[in-house]
Amino acid sequence: MGGDGGVDVVVAAVLAALERHPGLSVTLTGDADTVRATLGDHADHPRVAVMHTTQTVSMDEAPALALRGKKDSSMRVALNLVKDGSADACVSAGNTGALMATARFVLKMLPGIDRPALCSTLPAANGHTHMLDLGANLGFEADNLFQLAVMGAELVAAVDGIEAPKVGLLNVGAEEVKGLEAVREAGRMLAASDLNYIGFVEGNEIFSARVDVVVCDGFTGNVALKTAEGAARFVVSNLKDTFKGSLYGRLAGLVALPVLRAVARRIDPDRHNGASLLGINGIVIKSHGGANAKAFGRAIDIAVLEVAQNVPEKIHQHLVVRQQARTGTA
Amino acid sequence: MGGDGGVDVVVAAVLAALERHPGLSVTLTGDADTVRATLGDHADHPRVAVMHTTQTVSMDEAPALALRGKKDSSMRVALNLVKDGSADACVSAGNTGALMATARFVLKMLPGIDRPALCSTLPAANGHTHMLDLGANLGFEADNLFQLAVMGAELVAAVDGIEAPKVGLLNVGAEEVKGLEAVREAGRMLAASDLNYIGFVEGNEIFSARVDVVVCDGFTGNVALKTAEGAARFVVSNLKDTFKGSLYGRLAGLVALPVLRAVARRIDPDRHNGASLLGINGIVIKSHGGANAKAFGRAIDIAVLEVAQNVPEKIHQHLVVRQQARTGTA
Repeated sequence: MGGDGGVDVVVAAVLAALERHPGLSVTLTGDADTVRATLGDHADHPRVAVMHTTQTVSMDEAPALALRGKKDSSMRVALNLVKDGSADACVSAGNTGALMATARFVLKMLPGIDRPALCSTLPAANGHTHMLDLGANLGFEADNLFQLAVMGAELVAAVDGIEAPKVGLLNVGAEEVKGLEAVREAGRMLAASDLNYIGFVEGNEIFSARVDVVVCDGFTGNVALKTAEGAARFVVSNLKDTFKGSLYGRLAGLVALPVLRAVARRIDPDRHNGASLLGINGIVIKSHGGANAKAFGRAIDIAVLEVAQNVPEKIHQHLVVRQQARTGTA
Repeated sequence: MGGDGGVDVVVAAVLAALERHPGLSVTLTGDADTVRATLGDHADHPRVAVMHTTQTVSMDEAPALALRGKKDSSMRVALNLVKDGSADACVSAGNTGALMATARFVLKMLPGIDRPALCSTLPAANGHTHMLDLGANLGFEADNLFQLAVMGAELVAAVDGIEAPKVGLLNVGAEEVKGLEAVREAGRMLAASDLNYIGFVEGNEIFSARVDVVVCDGFTGNVALKTAEGAARFVVSNLKDTFKGSLYGRLAGLVALPVLRAVARRIDPDRHNGASLLGINGIVIKSHGGANAKAFGRAIDIAVLEVAQNVPEKIHQHLVVRQQARTGTA
C-alpha cells in the first residue's frame, strides 16, 4: 500500500468509508502483518479482506521497471483483482506513472481510446470543474484531445448527473495567435460532435461556471493544476501574514477566523483528491501521495460512484457503439 | 493608440510618468486632434510630442493583415521611431500579435534569437517571479527554451539588479513521466551553461522564492498566467461572498477590510502590468489592453528601466559575444 501516509491513512479511510457505504467491501493488498496490525480490532470486519503482497513500488521508480519487476506489488495485485472480477475498482496512492502503466497492461485500454488519462476536479463558481489530462500523457494530437473530451463528458454526466456537460478546450487568449494546430483541429472535431462543446476556454475560466469539463494535453493540465494550487496557497498565505503583521491585523484576524476557515475548506485540495484514470477497461482512482484519511476517503467515494455508474462502459458506448450506429458499421 | 481605455488612459499615464521621470520625453502616436484634445492644457508640455497617424489596428485583427495593410497605424509609426533612433522604446496596449509581428518586421531580431518572446512578472514570496514565454510563440524546441532562459536572466539581472538570477524550467511533477523531450534537452543545455540554473520547477513554485525566472513555451506560459489570475480571483471572490453571507461575516468583514485591501494590492495584476517583448533589436513593452492609467504607467516605468539598462544589448552580449569568446570565433 503506497502513499506518504502509508497503511495508517489507507486503513483509517477504509474504515470510515465502510461506515458511509453499507454495500462496500474492501480488499487491502500489502504486507498482511502490517495491514492486520493497523486494522487492530477491525481485522475481522466482515467486509474487509487482506491479501498479502511482498513487493512495493517506490514513488520515484520508473514505471517500466515497476511493470516488469514488481509482479507481486500491492498495486499490481489490486489491479489483478479488478481484472479477474474479484474487485470492481482499484484505489491507489502509489507512484502515478507505475499505476498508469500497470493498469494499462493488466486491464487494457477501452476500444477507441489510444492512451489513458487522469481527470480530477478543481473548485469553481458552480462547485467544481473537471479537468483532463493532468500529467499522464504528453504531446497530445487532435484525436487524443477529442477522446479526452468524450471521456470527460461521460464521467461528469455519470458522477455529477449533468445531462450534457459543457466541454471546453483550453487555449491561449483571443488576442494572441490562437493555439496549436492540434487544439484548433480538436475544436473543429468537437464542434461537429454530439457533445455540448462551448469552444476555447482560457486558464482563468477553469474557475468559472462557464464550463464543466476542461480538456487539454497532460503537460499543460499538470502545470495549470499545480499553478492553481500555488496561486491559491499564495493568496491564503499572504492573508495570514498580513493578519499577523500588526496588532490591528491580529485582532481583525481573530474576528475573521471563522470566515477564513470556511473559505479554506471550500478551496481545500483534499476535497478535490482522487483522480480518475480514464480510458482503461476498469475503474482505477489515483489518490494524491500525500493524502490524509479524509482525502483518501474522497478517492474511495469516487470509486464507489464510478462503479455504480459504470463509467468505462458509458465511455465505450459513446466512442464505439454510437460511432458504429452513426456510420452504419454496427 | 490602442487598448480598451483608449487615449484617456494613455495620456493620464504619460502625464504622471513625466512627473516621475524628469529625463523622459514622450511622443504620442495616434489621431492628433484626439490626442491634443485629451492632453488639454498639457498639449504644449515641453517633453510631449504628438505624431499624427491615420490607421488603427483592431484587437482581433490578424497580425499578418495589420503588418501588410496598416503602414500608418499608431503602432507601426511608434516602432518606426524606435528604428530610426528618434525613440528609445515603444509602449503599446494594442493587439499583441500585431505588435509582435510588426516589431519583428520593423526592428528585426537580435542575432542568435529565433523568435520574440513576452516576459512578465507574477507575484511571489520574494516580490515577484519573471515568467516567459507568455503566449507569443507556440511549440518551442530546446534551443528556443535555452534562448528564453538567457533573455529572462539578462532581463532580471538588469531590471531587478540580481547578479545571477535563479532560472528554472517549468515541467510536470517528479512522480510523473518527466516532461517533453524538448524540456529535458533544454535542461541539459542549461545545466552546462553559465546561467544559475536550478532545474525543473512545478507550477506551484512560480510563487515561491526558489526561482527568479521561470521558462516555458508560450502556450503553457499563457495558460499558467491566466490560471494563476483565475485562481487568485476565485479565492478573493470566495472571501467576499463568505464575508457577505452572514451578519457575523459582514461584521468580521468590516474589521478585516483594511487587511484584505492590503493583500488585494499586493496581488493586484495591475502591479504586474507591462510585458517585455524580448529578442527584438529594440525595447518594446506590451501593456494589457484593459490597463488603467496606473497599470499603463507601470509599463512605461519598465520601458524607462530597460532603456537605462540597455537590455537588448545585454542579451546580445550574452548570446553572441560571450559565445564567440568561448568558442574562439570572435
